[in-house]
Amino acid sequence: MARETTAPQNAHRSRLQVRWSDQDLNHHVNNARTLTLIEEARVRAGRAWSGTTPDGGDEDSRVVRNLSVEFNRPINYQDDVDGDTMVDAQVWITRIGNTSYTVCHELLQDGAVCAYAEAVIVMLAKIERTPTPITSEIGAGLARFQDPSFSN
Amino acid sequence: MARETTAPQNAHRSRLQVRWSDQDLNHHVNNARTLTLIEEARVRAGRAWSGTTPDGGDEDSRVVRNLSVEFNRPINYQDDVDGDTMVDAQVWITRIGNTSYTVCHELLQDGAVCAYAEAVIVMLAKIERTPTPITSEIGAGLARFQDPSFSN
Amino acid sequence: MARETTAPQNAHRSRLQVRWSDQDLNHHVNNARTLTLIEEARVRAGRAWSGTTPDGGDEDSRVVRNLSVEFNRPINYQDDVDGDTMVDAQVWITRIGNTSYTVCHELLQDGAVCAYAEAVIVMLAKIERTPTPITSEIGAGLARFQDPSFSN
Amino acid sequence: MARETTAPQNAHRSRLQVRWSDQDLNHHVNNARTLTLIEEARVRAGRAWSGTTPDGGDEDSRVVRNLSVEFNRPINYQDDVDGDTMVDAQVWITRIGNTSYTVCHELLQDGAVCAYAEAVIVMLAKIERTPTPITSEIGAGLARFQDPSFSN
Repeated sequence: MARETTAPQNAHRSRLQVRWSDQDLNHHVNNARTLTLIEEARVRAGRAWSGTTPDGGDEDSRVVRNLSVEFNRPINYQDDVDGDTMVDAQVWITRIGNTSYTVCHELLQDGAVCAYAEAVIVMLAKIERTPTPITSEIGAGLARFQDPSFSN
Repeated sequence: MARETTAPQNAHRSRLQVRWSDQDLNHHVNNARTLTLIEEARVRAGRAWSGTTPDGGDEDSRVVRNLSVEFNRPINYQDDVDGDTMVDAQVWITRIGNTSYTVCHELLQDGAVCAYAEAVIVMLAKIERTPTPITSEIGAGLARFQDPSFSN
Repeated sequence: MARETTAPQNAHRSRLQVRWSDQDLNHHVNNARTLTLIEEARVRAGRAWSGTTPDGGDEDSRVVRNLSVEFNRPINYQDDVDGDTMVDAQVWITRIGNTSYTVCHELLQDGAVCAYAEAVIVMLAKIERTPTPITSEIGAGLARFQDPSFSN
Repeated sequence: MARETTAPQNAHRSRLQVRWSDQDLNHHVNNARTLTLIEEARVRAGRAWSGTTPDGGDEDSRVVRNLSVEFNRPINYQDDVDGDTMVDAQVWITRIGNTSYTVCHELLQDGAVCAYAEAVIVMLAKIERTPTPITSEIGAGLARFQDPSFSN
């Protein structure tokens, strides 16, 4: 079930270290832990497009409503080389709605897509915990990372 | 985005402890950690339907190919009561294919569905790492937990 | 390196579930994860003696200054039985100082001590982040779980 | 409780990424997670001195018997800058015994020691699970990272 990258040029890119402890008994990075790597990639991208990280503070908060993941290839921890084991992360936006948006993520190792994930993020008003419109500031930040072929 | 349970009578049921450390800065159970709870529920159900746990051994192995999750309500760690904070897990089968099957999971807290997940599991031959037919033994185990309205 | 329990009668007791994912490649509960179980045991005991959990709130906070752990036996996830894999946790106090106290922890499986840990906890004033005296309220809570042979 | 580095010149050095998810409700890297970072630093150093990682394989295995940790300063995840949040890890040997050795670790952030840990590692024969002598090959590897002022 190989998968080609579909990340646009303007995707947010980061390189994430894999830890020995990310592996499970099956000797590759655990699926739930893969979601932690995807979360880390999104937190970093989110810092780029909104200037903040999810911090439990009292401003509006963003929550994941839906998450759909394809596991295409195992992510391995390299036992036999000195130095870092890395994954390359690419994060971009396909949809910017009124109170929610869709984030796409890829994790690659040695140039091959290992995991692809789509997340629907909803903006919640902190106190009422009900959906609240994306501010124009955050909307502009998101637009910088939006796949042009998906723009409105 | 409330969600009613759709678990059939014959779903596998377990009760899982939530840990203080499962929370993230947003003061509820982290999304990736929710996947760990879902994994734990599936490992336990898998022990019931196949007699084994994923152990890195050398028999055929089962891998998650696709995972799709709805986060309906936050899962909370109870600060104010003595004793265990629990989630109720329900796991069942909707589809039994030739080399793959679909597992559904619900995590409930105080009777409300907090997360719902569907996972497509593929059986892989251990050495070749290519899809291999579900044995009749495991197929029979799976069938015991299959939603009758989805049976073939 | 067997070890007999040294928990006093009045230790705080809880039973904690082990998860499949707590294991590492060595097929037993990972050492760092054992510390998460010890943390969970202490959080629960702390709720009993102070009425609160560490919540990032703005009251005084308790931080771990020193931690010393003996790993006596591996903690295993039981693959072959249906139901929960548990550890029994015992948590008690040996020392109550002015701004710090010492917490002892044991994790047992099948009646045998698997891990023993001592933690020195310091009370910090939330803003200044400097040591602050243990309140008489918390001191009284701690005293209820203090090993009588260590009392002042 | 500031602490100066005591790492010798020949310590093994690595740089480890901190993840957003490493934080707990107290808004700094969780103590148990700090042990995961220390484990990662030791796994990397162990690859340098023995050529292998702990892999659940069937050769002799190394287990942690005792662990003692000082938490000197919080490790923070940097919210406000783009790019990686790192800790610098230094790992070295102080004692090489017959069947065990002592590993020292420091984690630094912005040049300040945040955590210091000593671990006693015992070599176990895989089948019998009893202490077994350190091979001359591994002994030589360890010696390369031994603090000269502690050498025999």
